[in-house]
Amino acid sequence: MEILKVSSKSNPSSVAGAIANLIVENNEVAIHAVGAGAINQSIKAIAVAQRFVEQNDIVLVCVPSFIELEIDGEQRTAIKLLIERK
Amino acid sequence: MEILKVSSKSNPSSVAGAIANLIVENNEVAIHAVGAGAINQSIKAIAVAQRFVEQNDIVLVCVPSFIELEIDGEQRTAIKLLIERK
Repeated sequence: MEILKVSSKSNPSSVAGAIANLIVENNEVAIHAVGAGAINQSIKAIAVAQRFVEQNDIVLVCVPSFIELEIDGEQRTAIKLLIERK
Repeated sequence: MEILKVSSKSNPSSVAGAIANLIVENNEVAIHAVGAGAINQSIKAIAVAQRFVEQNDIVLVCVPSFIELEIDGEQRTAIKLLIERK
């Protein structure tokens, strides 16, 4: 499955476009986000992506979970957002 | 539908308990969150709630969308997270 790494500086509209394309092609995509700013941008991106895929009669749902990622040699708790069609 | 107002100061475990109870009782619940800190706490709460309801064979999904809320007389764009059973 394709994984999008979203940061607090990611542009929600760009991420939304990527989500919409991957959902139409693969039916699922995951986001990895570390920190409040990154999670905020991710959720906004999913809300925007919903508007993009509405024309294809798709409803997006996301399943949040905790994951451990190694970033710059350090263990960090991150959020995984699995995005699927309803 | 029950609406939980989550802020950046909300305790994710407490919110998770409320989500789990409401999902078991009503099958759905919504969160309203304004700002990155509030959205972060909300997503963490949903991830924790998932662990609470796993014993009931429930998988939670959430559907993010934008809403306009009036807070202290001002119009604010907020995030609504509709939480349902998969």
